[in-house]
Amino acid sequence: MSSVWGNKVKISIFGESHGEGIGVVLDGAPAGLRLDMDELLLNMGRRAPGKDKAATPRKEADVPNIVSGVLNGVTTGAPICCFIENTNTRSKDYGNLLSKPRPGHADYTGYVRYRGFNDIRGGGHFSGRLTAPLVFAGSVCRQALRKRGVEIASHIYSVGDIKDEPFNPVSIDGELIKRLNKRSFPLINEDIEDDMRSHIERARLDRDSVGGIIECCAAGIEPGLGGPMFSGAESLISSVMFGVPAVKGIEFGAGFDITRMYGSQSNDPFEYIDGRVMTSSNNNGGILGGITSGMPILFRVAIKPTPSISKEQNTVDLQSGENTTLEIQGRHDPCIVARAAVVIESALAIALINL
Amino acid sequence: MSSVWGNKVKISIFGESHGEGIGVVLDGAPAGLRLDMDELLLNMGRRAPGKDKAATPRKEADVPNIVSGVLNGVTTGAPICCFIENTNTRSKDYGNLLSKPRPGHADYTGYVRYRGFNDIRGGGHFSGRLTAPLVFAGSVCRQALRKRGVEIASHIYSVGDIKDEPFNPVSIDGELIKRLNKRSFPLINEDIEDDMRSHIERARLDRDSVGGIIECCAAGIEPGLGGPMFSGAESLISSVMFGVPAVKGIEFGAGFDITRMYGSQSNDPFEYIDGRVMTSSNNNGGILGGITSGMPILFRVAIKPTPSISKEQNTVDLQSGENTTLEIQGRHDPCIVARAAVVIESALAIALINL
Amino acid sequence: MSSVWGNKVKISIFGESHGEGIGVVLDGAPAGLRLDMDELLLNMGRRAPGKDKAATPRKEADVPNIVSGVLNGVTTGAPICCFIENTNTRSKDYGNLLSKPRPGHADYTGYVRYRGFNDIRGGGHFSGRLTAPLVFAGSVCRQALRKRGVEIASHIYSVGDIKDEPFNPVSIDGELIKRLNKRSFPLINEDIEDDMRSHIERARLDRDSVGGIIECCAAGIEPGLGGPMFSGAESLISSVMFGVPAVKGIEFGAGFDITRMYGSQSNDPFEYIDGRVMTSSNNNGGILGGITSGMPILFRVAIKPTPSISKEQNTVDLQSGENTTLEIQGRHDPCIVARAAVVIESALAIALINL
Amino acid sequence: MSSVWGNKVKISIFGESHGEGIGVVLDGAPAGLRLDMDELLLNMGRRAPGKDKAATPRKEADVPNIVSGVLNGVTTGAPICCFIENTNTRSKDYGNLLSKPRPGHADYTGYVRYRGFNDIRGGGHFSGRLTAPLVFAGSVCRQALRKRGVEIASHIYSVGDIKDEPFNPVSIDGELIKRLNKRSFPLINEDIEDDMRSHIERARLDRDSVGGIIECCAAGIEPGLGGPMFSGAESLISSVMFGVPAVKGIEFGAGFDITRMYGSQSNDPFEYIDGRVMTSSNNNGGILGGITSGMPILFRVAIKPTPSISKEQNTVDLQSGENTTLEIQGRHDPCIVARAAVVIESALAIALINL
Repeated sequence: MSSVWGNKVKISIFGESHGEGIGVVLDGAPAGLRLDMDELLLNMGRRAPGKDKAATPRKEADVPNIVSGVLNGVTTGAPICCFIENTNTRSKDYGNLLSKPRPGHADYTGYVRYRGFNDIRGGGHFSGRLTAPLVFAGSVCRQALRKRGVEIASHIYSVGDIKDEPFNPVSIDGELIKRLNKRSFPLINEDIEDDMRSHIERARLDRDSVGGIIECCAAGIEPGLGGPMFSGAESLISSVMFGVPAVKGIEFGAGFDITRMYGSQSNDPFEYIDGRVMTSSNNNGGILGGITSGMPILFRVAIKPTPSISKEQNTVDLQSGENTTLEIQGRHDPCIVARAAVVIESALAIALINL
Repeated sequence: MSSVWGNKVKISIFGESHGEGIGVVLDGAPAGLRLDMDELLLNMGRRAPGKDKAATPRKEADVPNIVSGVLNGVTTGAPICCFIENTNTRSKDYGNLLSKPRPGHADYTGYVRYRGFNDIRGGGHFSGRLTAPLVFAGSVCRQALRKRGVEIASHIYSVGDIKDEPFNPVSIDGELIKRLNKRSFPLINEDIEDDMRSHIERARLDRDSVGGIIECCAAGIEPGLGGPMFSGAESLISSVMFGVPAVKGIEFGAGFDITRMYGSQSNDPFEYIDGRVMTSSNNNGGILGGITSGMPILFRVAIKPTPSISKEQNTVDLQSGENTTLEIQGRHDPCIVARAAVVIESALAIALINL
Repeated sequence: MSSVWGNKVKISIFGESHGEGIGVVLDGAPAGLRLDMDELLLNMGRRAPGKDKAATPRKEADVPNIVSGVLNGVTTGAPICCFIENTNTRSKDYGNLLSKPRPGHADYTGYVRYRGFNDIRGGGHFSGRLTAPLVFAGSVCRQALRKRGVEIASHIYSVGDIKDEPFNPVSIDGELIKRLNKRSFPLINEDIEDDMRSHIERARLDRDSVGGIIECCAAGIEPGLGGPMFSGAESLISSVMFGVPAVKGIEFGAGFDITRMYGSQSNDPFEYIDGRVMTSSNNNGGILGGITSGMPILFRVAIKPTPSISKEQNTVDLQSGENTTLEIQGRHDPCIVARAAVVIESALAIALINL
Repeated sequence: MSSVWGNKVKISIFGESHGEGIGVVLDGAPAGLRLDMDELLLNMGRRAPGKDKAATPRKEADVPNIVSGVLNGVTTGAPICCFIENTNTRSKDYGNLLSKPRPGHADYTGYVRYRGFNDIRGGGHFSGRLTAPLVFAGSVCRQALRKRGVEIASHIYSVGDIKDEPFNPVSIDGELIKRLNKRSFPLINEDIEDDMRSHIERARLDRDSVGGIIECCAAGIEPGLGGPMFSGAESLISSVMFGVPAVKGIEFGAGFDITRMYGSQSNDPFEYIDGRVMTSSNNNGGILGGITSGMPILFRVAIKPTPSISKEQNTVDLQSGENTTLEIQGRHDPCIVARAAVVIESALAIALINL
């Protein structure tokens, strides 16, 4: 029951949405890694709200202040602490949360778990804002993985019913990875961007929100990482992914669709290509028996519609003990799927470095 | 990278399919629990092959021998070790695995991971047979959870394209739980059993296999268990589930379908019912912010088609370094979905007792 | 291999002696604890250098800035991050450390471990200064333990050959605990303070340093905490204690002297006192089989002489590959034993809250 | 609170003194290690009672049955389970323990911890007999360490007041290691053996017991293993050592005596010897800042007198709630120090393989 995760490289996330700030301690990262701060800030920016028309109006600078573990731009091997100040916290927006838990949020469950002592302003420690330090930590891991030849990318697989093209499961194009890594609204087929944005905009105008699916991959991973049973690659990846707020499902390779195949279709045949053992399909998403096969790791996560909507909703009043309604004031991000892409990529990096 | 899992109650699984036996150490289970051995054996039987027409022809007695931690039928608080002897191991069936990895199996990844030293007979430690000790451990946890009012059940949500009715997400009927808990082919709507069995039988005759989806629930769980981020309920549950061989996806509540809803639909409204805070829908599967809400925990896992099929398949010969084909001899279980139900239930119990 | 510790309540320590600052994340502390900041600052002050004649001349304000997890002075249940700015870092004092490792320090082993990338200024992450966040974290745990009736105290058992009186092992006086908790040079028999200080002053004048022993106790602990084998009370306590720089030994109860007793002397006889099971001696230090007996937990730790001395010492030059000598400039703390007392107390609190 | 330990290589110990058997699961040991069963059985024999005049009269064959993880004598990388049957369990000897806890034993604390459900026959899971699986697991780790050039040895440093010669802290002779590894009563100076045995025999005739100190070393360890703070070498080693019943203290290098030195004496000067960085003394026991220096790891543990003595002792009657006396029937081992040597060596191996 904690915000600490990892075996080899541990991350410990702290902070609240409307407190002094948020941050992360990354313990066990390799020494001697020169951090590419431009890429790191690019990743922070891809997650930050307000950079994009489809994002939340609340703007945070999200400047990562590296407090320890890095000397002259190079990791020392000591724990890396990154602190991000909160600069824009309008606590009064959330004045009525004490009594009326927001549907779809952790207000009520946090209230029970912490016996009413949790900081509910802006969701407190449950806020999506806590994904900022996760992106920082994941970006450091990602740069360490790159030294081993591993590249990570993701795209918006779908928003509502509107779908992008999927990754080619057996071979992820290097140029595509580079392009996606720079996008705040990453799509393989960019022709559908307008459709997706229109769909989001309609939801916003309706004071509502929409969800979607992120498809994420890691190319270049060595075969033989992971292990059987509970510390396998899928177990590690999924346990980090469900630490990302709003994630409600994960599927590897062909995922739920694999259940409609026959074994003769779903089994990925091995074949030698250029002297290397490969598989001619990748229905298992690069993982067999919890161990990487050397094929691209491929998975999708379901992101639920942002629970913060302005539409009137039914809820309870915990003070009076009566059923009531709630209308959340202020503007809200009608779709976090695009911003979630870099969070999912970062979470994957954290999982992979622990394999 | 291990077969050890858990924080409060740790399980450590050992054994190979064709070795002397398999088993589990369960460390941290509560003292003073009188084990219901009939129920425990019923659960072992629901998992065991050969009890059902749709199951593998290899029959194992799967007699759990409790070696420690239980005195006069009551847990002592010391680690519980259960050992299950292997009685029926025809190693010669697997004679050609050393050189030709079976598609969809961990033969190749295990070979890389353990540099060729892993026991490949019958899949070794990666065998589905290792789910037997998991069912034992989960059954003990389940009996401990029952003392707290928690009941677990699952059913075959689908086999191929054939679907059962889903659970009522806001209220799981106690009688239904009791009925499902006794079935080796658990279905809410038993009228579809013949269709499902026919589908499986056709695959078997075609020397092929089919997969499916298990839907699982826990009713009666206290609100307030779990926590934010990486040790939340979804993280814990998923990391155990992916320890079960053949699981390729998991989704909670409305799961991937939630991505096609609007926030106003997916947000579960709170309401007082009989003085208790409930939600009138359960799209979040009983978990908000990683913490239980007191509503039923509800999720589905995707089980891939059994990779062991008799049909000829393409693979490589690791000795000669050439592409080749493989025809696995012997009869194989064309569908493990029904037997997986009790495994998923057991894995859930292990996760929940660690919340 | 990390600066993260704990199972129930995790602490993650970060920072370097001459970096921007140091700090700690405390994850899992109970919600609803009103922090006594006066006591917390008193503890920080007992550890801080420069408050006492016998301490290091380097003065740090050591102001703990609570960044998260506390709202209006009360813990929220979310991770508590405390950040302590470094205000007085004279890096030039340490200019020659790159090539000449200081004997008794981690300069050389850190150099090997981190392949030369570690921050060696002032010992970097290995600095005794990192005990400041440990005192912060331990003080929070201590206040949580007090609610359960547990009080912790320690005294300078010895400096060099000069010995204080020991604790009464079967009954720790409440007034004594209160008095010791306020002292920066805690002694049961304060008459020996002058002797000890003279001994330290002589070492200082000789550009040398001295070590000593801290005796620490916890009174009021519930019986039945801990467990057999590796997660027993002694295992947990010792693993935190050896995380404190300069600790080279730990002994519980009669400790090494117990090896010179007969069993009939060392066995602590049980007896009923006021209807409670007590022991009439406490040679086992309140712990039997890794589990607390309800008697005071009692142990001693050996603190080696401060390795930083101004006297000329033999060492190697890692750059030239030759034997050489080293004379460390600047003034140094000739005895850290007094300041270590509150560190040991804090480390005990962290261990006990994890039992 | 468990009998599971380890990060890289996990051990999970199970069993009770008078149950069906005892054993261990070792998860994460390297694949491809050919086990030297002769050495393994030699180690088991060094621990076993009854092999030596000074040992307990209860004789157990202690045959380790390797149930999994080893194929044709070579480790497969899968969890290794070793089961040891209990063959000689005279439960009636312990008939009066339910009501009268034995002083110095875990009877009372286990009773409180497990609310009376623990198996108290022969100490149950708290029995010294549980060190047999620990020796098995440690012996496997030791053979893996030997491949890296690490050798472990220990000797009886003292029994009561009778002392052996200490190890040469800066250079452990290879021939000495070989000799000690074969002895059931390991001494550097074998001339004192008669004195020690006479001392033990006198205690036995007096229905009493004696304790002693084991000095243990590891030679050939690589520099740079371990890390700062809580997962340093001393933390890991001590947390395993205190898992060994009867251990009440541990000190590294000069240990408690270092507190009587000056810094100019205790600091181990670095020097180049044959181009390698060495220290000319080893007061730090081969560990600086939690990291190995490449010098021999050296430490001593205090073993308390065996608590099982036949002499009449004061205790309580938990049933009647009155003070009473206890006279334990049967013959008892008057000194476990000699047998503890191989247990300490094994525990060290388990710690070192996790660095």
